[in-house]
Amino acid sequence: MISNPATKYRQFPVIALSDRQWPNKVIDRAPRFLSSDLRDGNQALIEPMSIEKKLRMFDLLVECGFKEIEIAFPSASETEFKFVRRLIEENRVPDDVVLQVLTQAREDLIVRTFESLKGCKQAIVHVYNATSPVFRQVVFNKSKEEIKALAVHGATLIKEEAKKYPETDWSFQYSPEIFSDTELDFAIEVCEAVCDVWQPSPQKKVILNLPATVEMSTPNVYADQIEYFCRHISRRESVVISIHVHNDRGCAVAATELAIMAGGDRVEGCLFGHGERTGNVDLITIALNLYTQGIDPTLDFTKMNKIVREVEHCTQLPVHPRHPYAGELVFTAFSGSHQDAIKKGLSQRKKDIESNNGAYWQVPYLPIDPIDLDRSYEAVIRVNSQSGKGGVAYLLEQDHGIEMPRRLQIEFSRIAQKEADTTGKELTSGVLYSIFEAAYFNAPKHVELLQHKMLGEDDEGNTTIHAIFKTNNQTIEVETTGNGPIAAFVKAINQSLNLDIDVVDYNEHARSQGAQASAVSYIEMQVGNRTLFGAGTHVNSSKSSYLAIMSALNRAIDKNWISLNH
Amino acid sequence: MISNPATKYRQFPVIALSDRQWPNKVIDRAPRFLSSDLRDGNQALIEPMSIEKKLRMFDLLVECGFKEIEIAFPSASETEFKFVRRLIEENRVPDDVVLQVLTQAREDLIVRTFESLKGCKQAIVHVYNATSPVFRQVVFNKSKEEIKALAVHGATLIKEEAKKYPETDWSFQYSPEIFSDTELDFAIEVCEAVCDVWQPSPQKKVILNLPATVEMSTPNVYADQIEYFCRHISRRESVVISIHVHNDRGCAVAATELAIMAGGDRVEGCLFGHGERTGNVDLITIALNLYTQGIDPTLDFTKMNKIVREVEHCTQLPVHPRHPYAGELVFTAFSGSHQDAIKKGLSQRKKDIESNNGAYWQVPYLPIDPIDLDRSYEAVIRVNSQSGKGGVAYLLEQDHGIEMPRRLQIEFSRIAQKEADTTGKELTSGVLYSIFEAAYFNAPKHVELLQHKMLGEDDEGNTTIHAIFKTNNQTIEVETTGNGPIAAFVKAINQSLNLDIDVVDYNEHARSQGAQASAVSYIEMQVGNRTLFGAGTHVNSSKSSYLAIMSALNRAIDKNWISLNH
Repeated sequence: MISNPATKYRQFPVIALSDRQWPNKVIDRAPRFLSSDLRDGNQALIEPMSIEKKLRMFDLLVECGFKEIEIAFPSASETEFKFVRRLIEENRVPDDVVLQVLTQAREDLIVRTFESLKGCKQAIVHVYNATSPVFRQVVFNKSKEEIKALAVHGATLIKEEAKKYPETDWSFQYSPEIFSDTELDFAIEVCEAVCDVWQPSPQKKVILNLPATVEMSTPNVYADQIEYFCRHISRRESVVISIHVHNDRGCAVAATELAIMAGGDRVEGCLFGHGERTGNVDLITIALNLYTQGIDPTLDFTKMNKIVREVEHCTQLPVHPRHPYAGELVFTAFSGSHQDAIKKGLSQRKKDIESNNGAYWQVPYLPIDPIDLDRSYEAVIRVNSQSGKGGVAYLLEQDHGIEMPRRLQIEFSRIAQKEADTTGKELTSGVLYSIFEAAYFNAPKHVELLQHKMLGEDDEGNTTIHAIFKTNNQTIEVETTGNGPIAAFVKAINQSLNLDIDVVDYNEHARSQGAQASAVSYIEMQVGNRTLFGAGTHVNSSKSSYLAIMSALNRAIDKNWISLNH
Repeated sequence: MISNPATKYRQFPVIALSDRQWPNKVIDRAPRFLSSDLRDGNQALIEPMSIEKKLRMFDLLVECGFKEIEIAFPSASETEFKFVRRLIEENRVPDDVVLQVLTQAREDLIVRTFESLKGCKQAIVHVYNATSPVFRQVVFNKSKEEIKALAVHGATLIKEEAKKYPETDWSFQYSPEIFSDTELDFAIEVCEAVCDVWQPSPQKKVILNLPATVEMSTPNVYADQIEYFCRHISRRESVVISIHVHNDRGCAVAATELAIMAGGDRVEGCLFGHGERTGNVDLITIALNLYTQGIDPTLDFTKMNKIVREVEHCTQLPVHPRHPYAGELVFTAFSGSHQDAIKKGLSQRKKDIESNNGAYWQVPYLPIDPIDLDRSYEAVIRVNSQSGKGGVAYLLEQDHGIEMPRRLQIEFSRIAQKEADTTGKELTSGVLYSIFEAAYFNAPKHVELLQHKMLGEDDEGNTTIHAIFKTNNQTIEVETTGNGPIAAFVKAINQSLNLDIDVVDYNEHARSQGAQASAVSYIEMQVGNRTLFGAGTHVNSSKSSYLAIMSALNRAIDKNWISLNH
C-alpha cells in the first residue's frame, strides 16, 4: 500500500457554485480552435522540430482547417524568431489564418515579439504571467498587487507596441497562469485590470485564456471555475473565454467539454494531445467527439492516416494504438461476439441506405464510421486462440525470426485467416510461415528488379542509384538520386513506371538462420489513399530493403491498386 | 471539411434529471476495484497472453493490491477453462482475493462456468445479456420481454447451479449490455427482475454492473444515468453499483470519476487502459488521481517501473510516453522556465520538511511526487536548441548512425549536458559522439569479458554458453543455460559475480560504417529498483549484445549501484 497519502496530499477545494448551470447544457456547436502544436507541442518533444518539420506541421494544420495557430515564442530564440519571419516573408499564411505568438510580460521580449510579426496580416499576441499562490510565493516571491501590476504593465506595453505596426490587424490574449490553481476572484481581478487597459468591445474582443496548466481535480471542478469566471467577469460580450487544459489526471478531453458547457468559447490544444508532460488536450478527440454528435467540428480529420504519419514524423512520438479515433486497434474487433454484432449492424446500415431510410449511424461497438476517417473496420480472427500460445505474430517471431511491425501483424493475420478458411489447413507455425513467404517474400513478380547498383552518396546523404526493372513487356533502365537509398529506389520505381507510390514506414531486423545472419525488411507503402506492406530478406540489408519495396509494389499491382498501363 | 455530420450522426439524448446531486459531491474514499486485465484486457490483444503471461499478470495484480480479479470467460475455450483450474488447483489465489468469471445467460455455458470454479474459496459469477435497442432490434431481433426473460433465466440458472457447490462463497453480478445505450427505465426493469431472483440483502449484496461499453456522450451524461439508476433501483442497500467505462471519447477516467460521485460503489477496468478498441478505463489513473487528493486508493502502484515493464511484456503493447503517472515523459521538464519553477518548488519542499512544517506537496508542474512512483524528476536541457536541428538523439542518429532507444535518449542527454557544463565545450555532433563512446562503448572495465562461446541451442531456444570474466582480483569461468543468448549471458554474470541483475529492454540495429556494417546493441539493465543503459557495437551481433550488457554492468559498478565484494 502507498503509505498514507493524507499527510502528503490534500483534496482540491470545491468551488462555491451551488446553482451551477453547466450540467444542464449540451454542446450544440463547435468552439473556436487554436492549435498549439508548434508551441506547447514542440516545446515538449525530445527532438524539437527542425524548420522543415515546422513548415510541414504548419501546412498540415492549415489543411486540417485550423484558423488560429500558435506558432512560436519568438523572443525566446533565434530559431523561433526566424520561423515566424519565414512564414510571413514567404507568404505561407493563408488570408483566413491568424498567427498567434506567446510572450512574457517583459519589455524587451514584447518589442522583439512585435518585430517578429512585422508585415503580418493579422495576429494574436498572447501574454501571460503567473498568478497562482505557489508561483507568487515560492517561485517569484511577489505580492498579489505586484503580480497584477506586472500583468497591467505587459498589457500596456503590448497596446503601445501594437500601435507602431498599424498595417497588422492585432488581437490580444492574456493568460493568468496557472488559472486552475489561482484564487478565482484574484484571477478575475487581474483579468479585469488587463481588460481595463485593452478596452475590448463586442467588435474587437479580447481573449482571456484560462489554463489548467496542471489538472488539479475532477473535471467538473474546472467547469465550475469556468462558469464562475464567466458569470463574474464584466464585459462578458467583449471577451472570448478560452479553454486550455493539460492531461495530468487523464481528464483533459472531459474538462474541456464540460468547460465548453460552462461557457468556454474557444479551445487551445494539440493534435493527439502533444505538449509538456502528459500533454495538452487532444484536439482531434474534441473535434471528432463533436462530429459523432452530428455537429460540424469545423476541422477536417478525414485523412486520418496521413495525419498520423505526418504528426509521428514531425514529433517522433507514436500515436497510441488505442487513441480514440486514430489508434491502430480502435476499429479492430477481436471478439467473435463483437464481430457478429458489427457484421449485423453494418448489413442493417446497408439496407437502410439502399431503402433511403435516412437512418442515423448505429453500428454496435463503432461510435463512428471508420470510412469517415479513411479507415476500415477490421475483424481479426484469433488464429491460435485454442493453443493459448498467442497469435500469428508470436509464432512467426518465436519459430521463424519474423518480427512483424504492428500494422503488418493485423494485415497478415487476415491473409492467414483467409488462407485457413480456404484450405481448411490447421495454422501451425510452419504453415503460417509458408503463407507469409508466399504473400510477401515471393509475391507475384509483375515487375522484376533485374539489377541495382549504388553509384554514390554525398555529404548530405543524397544517394544515387542505378536500377533495371523488367515488366512483362519492357525493360527499363533508370538512374535516380534521393535522400538515402530507399528514397532513391522508390524514385526509381516511380520514374520508371510513372507511379506515385511512397514509403510510409520502414523496419528492419537481423535474423539468424543457421550460421548466417540475414536482414529482414518491411515496407509500408502508400498507394493513393491506401497502404500495404511488403517484406524482403537478404544477407545484404540494402538489397533486403529493395526486395521489400518490390514486394509491396507487386502486391499492390496484384490487388489492382496499381495499373501498369503507361 | 468533413461533410455534414448532422445527416449521419445525432446528439445523444439528455437525461431528465434536473435536480441532479452529483456535481455537489466530492470523492472522499476509494471505490472497490476489479481488474479485468485477464478478461477484457486480454481479449483485445493482438497477441493474447500465454498461460505463463497470464500467471505473471495475475501475480502482478495481486501484488498491486487487487481484491477482485476477473480472470476468464471459462466456458469460451479450453484455454480459458484450464487457466481457471490452474489458479485454483495450484492454490495461487490468496484468501482475500475474489475471482470473477464472465458468462452469457445460456445453460450449457453456466454449467461449464461453475465446473471451472470447483473448489474455489470465493467467486463472483458475472452474467450479462444485451438490453440496448440496437442489440435487441438489429443483432438479436428480440422484444423487451424476451430480453428480460433471458436475463431472468440466466439469473435462475446461476442461483440453482451455485447450490451444487456449497463449499464456495458465491456472489452474483449482472450487466445489462450496453447500459449506456439502454433506455434507463428498461435497464432498471431488467435489473429489478434479476434481483427478484437473486434476493440480495445488505449482508449478501448483488453487483449490478452498468457498462458504458461504448462511450455515447459527454461524461456528465453517464453520471446522470448512474444517479438516475441509483435513485430508482429498489433495494439500494443490497446492491453494489459497479461502473464499467470504455474510452471511445477519451473520457473514460472522467466518466468513471463523475459516476462515483453519482453513486458508483465499484469500478471495473484495466491497467493502463487496455481492453477492446479504445480500451477500458485505466485503473492506474483512477487510483493515483485519488492518491493525489489525499485519499488512500487501496491499490499500490509504487513500483511503477516494474509495473510498466510487466504489463508491456504481458500485453506486447506500449505504455504511451505521455500516460499520466507512468509515461516516460511525464516527469520531464523541457522548458527552462518550468525547470526553474520546479527547482524552486523542490527546494522549498526540502525546507518545509526540514523545518517539520508538515506542508502538503506543492511543486509547480508536478501534481505528484515522482518518488512515490519509483521515478525521479528529470530536467532535460536542450543541448541544441539554438541550431534548430533538434536534440542529441537527432545528431547522433544523423551523423553517427546511433539510434538510441527513447529512455536512453533521456539518460544520455543528461550525461551530455553534464559534460558540456564541466568542459565548456560546444556540443557539436563529433563531441557528442565522443561523450557517447566514452560513456557506453568504452565504459570503465571493472569486469572484463575475456572469452565467450556458444555451446549449443536446443529446440525450445535454450542456449548454453561458456564465458570467462576477469575482475581486478580473479578470473571466473562459467557455463550457463538460458532462454536465448542474452538470458544465458546475464545468468553467467549473475552466477559469476553473485549478482541479481536483469535485462529490462533490448534493442539492436545495423549501422553502416564505411564498407562494413556493424550491429549496435542497447541494453536497459535493472539493478535493484533502478535501471540504466549499456551499449555495445561489433560486426557480430551476438558479441555486440554481450558488449552492451558488459557496458551496463560496468556503468552500474562505476555508479556504486553494484559492489563486487563477494
